[in-house]
Amino acid sequence: MTDPHPAASRGFSTSEFERRTDAAQKIMAQCGLDAMLLTTEPEVRYFTGFDTIFWLSPTRPWFVVVPSKGKPIAVIPEIGAPSMSLTWVTDIRTWLAPRPEDDGITLLTDTLHEVMPNDGTLGLPMGHETHVRMPAADFRRLQSGLDGISIADGTDVVRSLRMVKSEAEITKIARMCSIASSAFADLPNHIKAGDTERQAFAKFKIDLLQKGADDVPYLVGSSGPGGFTDVINRPTDRVIIEGDMLLLDTGSLYDGYSCDFDRNFAFGHASDAAKTAYDLAWRATEAGLQAARPGITTTELWATMGKVLEDGGCSGHQIGRMGHGLGMQVTEWPSLMAGDDTMIEADMVLTLEPGLAFGDGKMMLHEENIVIREGGAELLTRRAARDLPIIT
Amino acid sequence: MTDPHPAASRGFSTSEFERRTDAAQKIMAQCGLDAMLLTTEPEVRYFTGFDTIFWLSPTRPWFVVVPSKGKPIAVIPEIGAPSMSLTWVTDIRTWLAPRPEDDGITLLTDTLHEVMPNDGTLGLPMGHETHVRMPAADFRRLQSGLDGISIADGTDVVRSLRMVKSEAEITKIARMCSIASSAFADLPNHIKAGDTERQAFAKFKIDLLQKGADDVPYLVGSSGPGGFTDVINRPTDRVIIEGDMLLLDTGSLYDGYSCDFDRNFAFGHASDAAKTAYDLAWRATEAGLQAARPGITTTELWATMGKVLEDGGCSGHQIGRMGHGLGMQVTEWPSLMAGDDTMIEADMVLTLEPGLAFGDGKMMLHEENIVIREGGAELLTRRAARDLPIIT
Repeated sequence: MTDPHPAASRGFSTSEFERRTDAAQKIMAQCGLDAMLLTTEPEVRYFTGFDTIFWLSPTRPWFVVVPSKGKPIAVIPEIGAPSMSLTWVTDIRTWLAPRPEDDGITLLTDTLHEVMPNDGTLGLPMGHETHVRMPAADFRRLQSGLDGISIADGTDVVRSLRMVKSEAEITKIARMCSIASSAFADLPNHIKAGDTERQAFAKFKIDLLQKGADDVPYLVGSSGPGGFTDVINRPTDRVIIEGDMLLLDTGSLYDGYSCDFDRNFAFGHASDAAKTAYDLAWRATEAGLQAARPGITTTELWATMGKVLEDGGCSGHQIGRMGHGLGMQVTEWPSLMAGDDTMIEADMVLTLEPGLAFGDGKMMLHEENIVIREGGAELLTRRAARDLPIIT
Repeated sequence: MTDPHPAASRGFSTSEFERRTDAAQKIMAQCGLDAMLLTTEPEVRYFTGFDTIFWLSPTRPWFVVVPSKGKPIAVIPEIGAPSMSLTWVTDIRTWLAPRPEDDGITLLTDTLHEVMPNDGTLGLPMGHETHVRMPAADFRRLQSGLDGISIADGTDVVRSLRMVKSEAEITKIARMCSIASSAFADLPNHIKAGDTERQAFAKFKIDLLQKGADDVPYLVGSSGPGGFTDVINRPTDRVIIEGDMLLLDTGSLYDGYSCDFDRNFAFGHASDAAKTAYDLAWRATEAGLQAARPGITTTELWATMGKVLEDGGCSGHQIGRMGHGLGMQVTEWPSLMAGDDTMIEADMVLTLEPGLAFGDGKMMLHEENIVIREGGAELLTRRAARDLPIIT
């Protein structure tokens, strides 16, 4: 069987990790950061290539230090050493975790003192969409062991780098979007009125895996007569019946890179209100597709889609975030919303996600994934049908 | 088709959430905590029933406050209000997230001042296996807005409660363990030499979903000639051949509760060294099964299994953690290891997971899931075969 989806090789070349590290070190120098401390999965993977689902276990912390020069240093539990040694990282320091009385803190402190001046500044992502993945008590211990080293917010280093994707990253997202587009296109062949939400979602998930997704960590949605009222639900045992609307929204993974888009379906028939809401969301997305290009801001792009919704009768209150960055995570910086004001650049991967409320508190949500090129937006998803698909 | 697996109803009764909250409030009173702040998925779900995969998105923080009396209070992004309103929680306070300049911090601060004395103590899980899931800069802002309120480590509140499971929780884990046991039993019918690791793992994952797992978030393992050297890997494109050993280890979910166990297979034939290592790990597990009961400590249970490994020729250095708690997360408190010293109680759900190195750096890992009853351990998994299964 020929593979109908865009090719994407697995992993990254060492030169890609070198480029990422060099770029981070340039920004660190501009910001006066002598090293960066990374504690979360996407950041560790971004700089090292270390790719394991072991992060699901809350038991062990994992640390990566990006010094001002040279390669990242891994300070990790011994159990991760074989996997980390397959990456480009060569300086791998381990301890036998779990060891609650000193779960890597001494090892990390020593490493930081080794690579930083005594009065240096350590960058740590502390801003929006970040958290510090280690026990707060251990973080306090780390701080007190740093002596003259101070900690500053290093969010901008990872944010500015991760927002703009390499071609290798884009091909992985493009492949995943193509696989999910095929699964959405086939969905009417698999699901029918009479299925429970749980059955319908399970069939979709299995089809995604059979079509080549590595994993389907994110799958939410909802069904209801004439529409649905919630868009972040897990499926329930509710039986889908004629007259229902159904939304499925997936963040599936190919080689650690995500799609994030949804599709709407009606069963048997649809109300004029639902068709009108679908049309409005479709047109708002279309306006976003036409407008997205380097040199406008996320807020201008948001306003362009918002104008379509407002002209269609939505109140300003309903118009919140209408898209976001996409990559290793199902949602990433930036946000398409008022006040974000991020300048859009070539090779950003974004979702366009206009939504609105209609009728009696029902919701309509469209979503497409795009990559920004010099000439404008390129669709990574196969565009949603022009008219609300009706499964009969 | 009749369902061959133990029945487990979905969700929990309101009285279960009341019991959990009452129990937490009793411990909080003993510890001098006037309220608890919860920021992570399992804790929020434990006290509210709020169950969404939306946590995968790093964009928004979610807060739950457990006051000294009365029901938990949700302080959450507006997008979660419909789902939260389906739970037993009635006091739901929302803001339009994302709002980086004040992402719920004012709302949370006001809520804490409302339910706590001005010089009160706020419990926050800060210990081993916890983290604070909100931007560190926002946490600093929260702290400075608390005025006279101090923050103390509240890990013991959630740790002591979550370690001992209710019957409703145990039935969900039992059902998941049964489903995965069936999938492991059927595995030799699905996979064969010539499959890549990725193909073999994908078939196993799809079979788990078809047999009734809601999701398969955790699936790791490895293959290699005569054994494998890494136990936390994702599958690769390596082709499995005659003479290989294969390990699969899954944390699959039923209604938000996890199994966590593995199985070993050989292809075509196995070396005496591998058979001996398998036998040793099997007997260590058996010793753990016999020894596990209320009134001994996690460290004594660990030592019992370790003695078998040591008698079999393993050095002390190799004998690290040999199991852990299991529930909403694939690994939970406590740890079966030196220094843990947690008193084992009835209705704890644990993994027994003795492992050893053999031959040229190869690893052998066994794992079973048990519930502790007054009379001893009850297996939730179907016991691993007495001899190393060979797929021919």
